[in-house]
Amino acid sequence: MMRIAVAQLDPVLGDFPGNVERILAAAQAAQVQGAQLLITPELALCGNPPLDYLRRLDFLQASENALADLTARAAQRVPGLRILVGHPEKSTAGLYNAASLLQSGKMQRVARKTRLNTASGYDESRYFSAGLPAQPFIMDGLRCVVSVGEEAIDPSQVDLQLVLNAAPFVMDQAAPPLPAGARIVCNLAGAQDEWAFSGASLAHDAHGQMALRLPEFCEALGFIDLTQEPLQPPGEFPRLRLSSTQKSPVLDADVALYQALVAGLAGYVRKNNFPGVLLGLSGGMDSALVLCIAVDALGAERVQTVMMPSPYTAQMSLDDARAMARHFGCRYDEIPIVPAMQTFKDMLDPLLSGLPLGLTEENLQSRFRGNLLMALSNQSGKLVLTTGNKSETAVGYCTLYGDTAGGFAVLKDVYKTRVYQLGRYRNSQPGGAPIPENILTRAPSAELRPDQTDQDSLPDYAVLDAIAYAYLEKGRSARQIIADGQPQEAVRRIVQLLRGAQYKRAQGPLGLRLSAQSFGSDWHYPLTQRYAEAF
Amino acid sequence: MMRIAVAQLDPVLGDFPGNVERILAAAQAAQVQGAQLLITPELALCGNPPLDYLRRLDFLQASENALADLTARAAQRVPGLRILVGHPEKSTAGLYNAASLLQSGKMQRVARKTRLNTASGYDESRYFSAGLPAQPFIMDGLRCVVSVGEEAIDPSQVDLQLVLNAAPFVMDQAAPPLPAGARIVCNLAGAQDEWAFSGASLAHDAHGQMALRLPEFCEALGFIDLTQEPLQPPGEFPRLRLSSTQKSPVLDADVALYQALVAGLAGYVRKNNFPGVLLGLSGGMDSALVLCIAVDALGAERVQTVMMPSPYTAQMSLDDARAMARHFGCRYDEIPIVPAMQTFKDMLDPLLSGLPLGLTEENLQSRFRGNLLMALSNQSGKLVLTTGNKSETAVGYCTLYGDTAGGFAVLKDVYKTRVYQLGRYRNSQPGGAPIPENILTRAPSAELRPDQTDQDSLPDYAVLDAIAYAYLEKGRSARQIIADGQPQEAVRRIVQLLRGAQYKRAQGPLGLRLSAQSFGSDWHYPLTQRYAEAF
Repeated sequence: MMRIAVAQLDPVLGDFPGNVERILAAAQAAQVQGAQLLITPELALCGNPPLDYLRRLDFLQASENALADLTARAAQRVPGLRILVGHPEKSTAGLYNAASLLQSGKMQRVARKTRLNTASGYDESRYFSAGLPAQPFIMDGLRCVVSVGEEAIDPSQVDLQLVLNAAPFVMDQAAPPLPAGARIVCNLAGAQDEWAFSGASLAHDAHGQMALRLPEFCEALGFIDLTQEPLQPPGEFPRLRLSSTQKSPVLDADVALYQALVAGLAGYVRKNNFPGVLLGLSGGMDSALVLCIAVDALGAERVQTVMMPSPYTAQMSLDDARAMARHFGCRYDEIPIVPAMQTFKDMLDPLLSGLPLGLTEENLQSRFRGNLLMALSNQSGKLVLTTGNKSETAVGYCTLYGDTAGGFAVLKDVYKTRVYQLGRYRNSQPGGAPIPENILTRAPSAELRPDQTDQDSLPDYAVLDAIAYAYLEKGRSARQIIADGQPQEAVRRIVQLLRGAQYKRAQGPLGLRLSAQSFGSDWHYPLTQRYAEAF
Repeated sequence: MMRIAVAQLDPVLGDFPGNVERILAAAQAAQVQGAQLLITPELALCGNPPLDYLRRLDFLQASENALADLTARAAQRVPGLRILVGHPEKSTAGLYNAASLLQSGKMQRVARKTRLNTASGYDESRYFSAGLPAQPFIMDGLRCVVSVGEEAIDPSQVDLQLVLNAAPFVMDQAAPPLPAGARIVCNLAGAQDEWAFSGASLAHDAHGQMALRLPEFCEALGFIDLTQEPLQPPGEFPRLRLSSTQKSPVLDADVALYQALVAGLAGYVRKNNFPGVLLGLSGGMDSALVLCIAVDALGAERVQTVMMPSPYTAQMSLDDARAMARHFGCRYDEIPIVPAMQTFKDMLDPLLSGLPLGLTEENLQSRFRGNLLMALSNQSGKLVLTTGNKSETAVGYCTLYGDTAGGFAVLKDVYKTRVYQLGRYRNSQPGGAPIPENILTRAPSAELRPDQTDQDSLPDYAVLDAIAYAYLEKGRSARQIIADGQPQEAVRRIVQLLRGAQYKRAQGPLGLRLSAQSFGSDWHYPLTQRYAEAF
């Protein structure tokens, strides 16, 4: 009856000429393979989320121009093919997150998003008006309905629902139950700033039978063949059978999370034209995992590592950092920071008149490392990766302008216990274990003073993470978390640290959002507050 | 007929015991002076804006408890006095920004905000449901209506409107025309994070005659006496005369802006319990103005200054910095950064193999200064002030982790040309001109290389500011700004710089919001984008 192509695209935000070309290339490939209709993701024309660019009339005008350009060029390059494209639509009634059907040089708007996304760190209702539910229309004898984003339909009125989607990836989420009716969902793939889009576009029939599932986090072009179910009374609307040969398996939680981290970093680097990345290795777990992710995302030749030892750096840390760099074959240098420590001590001494430096000195060490990485970044144009995890960010166990200095916080939304878990997962992959066993088993330490470990200042990470998870992701109160069985003193300490660290988070680098409560744009907390929660 | 007290309060966010006490103290003073009713500002019970604390059930519960506590204690301490208090109201129907009337131990909810604020950097619709318009009720023979925030009323149905308000200050705004009907507005005063609240509570009668105007940016208690207009037919609702002796004058734009800057800094320091502030003096205009503001906000004894000269620092810069510190009598130290420059050069040389450092070296100088200020802050607990202005922040003429390192960006929302204007204003005040004429007249320079001036890299600030203002605050496109008469090359350059500097702004410190387009929480732009605007 009909062949439909699903173009799971990864547009670049605001790159209208590039995105038009990307859609046309998919359309051409679709037509060559006999498709009659191509579906693109939500806002494929401009990229997603455009945020405040949607408030600029020049941006909206550029989008209109691009849509007209795509319509005209599609009529030339893929005559006869219908294209469903997602784009912003500025009308006198308001701004809509819309979908239009392009065919033979004509453009027909077929849907406006009805359920605006307000819970992904970006709030579509800041920009868009909600549309009315789309009406079914007849296409090739089928009652079709197009929706932007998930929208419930009446399956007795609709033979096929076509969904343009852009759903940000959230880790550890079970696939939702399939709604009623036959459906094809084309989801955005790749990454934009803190958002990863998983792709995993799918199609299923009215019996809930999965026909198509495209792979995660990458662009892909899928095909679905629609045929009529046999033994159907004549004169009625056809009951559809959907078939395809592309059925990418559902990934395990850790695999999906690791792939999201890789895709998020790769996308940020590629779309911003960085020649490569730079990171400081400490011989610890966080930088070890970030190194793995960076190499998997970019290849070893685009990953530069620097070890910046102090007198408090253990020989084991140096050995392990060297071993990892050797394993991958990355560029690796060492810059001891002792000279800077001595110089700044001398510079500050007249003002501090011999007072012990303590925490100040610890922070200075971290900042020297930040300075050195930023200097190397200035010289090379490479992006500095920070290696802090969500547990540290939650309690402020980090130095502003020190270990938080950089352009992309790879593990920003990953708790420390999960970092270990991902490290073990990565070590289990083919090609040999990149992370020395030492790193996985020794006590974590910032190595900013002699014999320091993280647990001098913090509860065990298993406890810390459980408390922070309950407080942040589940919205549990301190009192409830204690009632749940966590130790009162640890709860009190972590909640206090969490509140007090907001000024650090407010200046932290961008990092991938992987949960519904990331410390990125989900997180709107005041810095000034004296809220004394009951314990 | 009736005496109404207006308590223009400055609550501390989440400090429920403190805020209850603050309201009770105002109530006691009001009763002593014969008032029958006290009005507080919007959300006076919890402080404003609470942001995501409104999503925490424990916070909402603490607010409920505080409201019950206030009701009970008011019945004891100010028996008979009615109190109108603003607070969040969690009901089964949703969360509301509400007002309740407390009297004799009883609490009656009288209003829910209908027009939620979405355009002040915080979006109340993220948290609150909108209420229905409040209904008038009879109080002491008067038809009264209470509203949270501005709300239009039908003056034929209402004798007196009582408004609980929390309107963020925006500079250079003319007072809006007075709406119909007699009205008393109690506005929040002081500062919370990036928001300044001007206070300036007011009361006017149905003829638009102003009866009361409280002063700007500080707590105040005002009284309005209601009397009946003479010659009124008996049996009708009374036509009201409002009288008071407190009529604080409307401030000139620069005076109001300067006061907002002082109040914003003072509030942030006080509410966060900083013992004082620290800033780097450069001998330039921005740090000169920040020093004036800091001294006016905190007193010279709580302001510590540091000059950190390099070989590129002009003698004039040193002289001017010393003169300013001497004028105010602040602590002033000098820490030359030459030793750090040499040490880092030696540390980096093996990796950079003698390549000229150029911009890298300029950034390093700025970062050494950031390191030193942060070290002094670590030792003393003082807040580091940054001195960058909106023009620099717009085009990224600043060093991340260098001159942007600090906790509070005083001039974040003030363009460079306005910085000069405010400097001249401050010099005109009694007590002698603190800013040396040199600073006001010499060409601005970052002094990071020999004979550098800002205009080596940027257009004249008058041109830059006009372009940035049109682009940012007016939403004009590059093409429109050129059509308006600005030079094409300057427009192209500034718009490109503006787009490219987003990664710096994303990690910038908190600073006062003084316009509708600050680079704080108003500003939601992606870092990754390739939008090529038409020129």
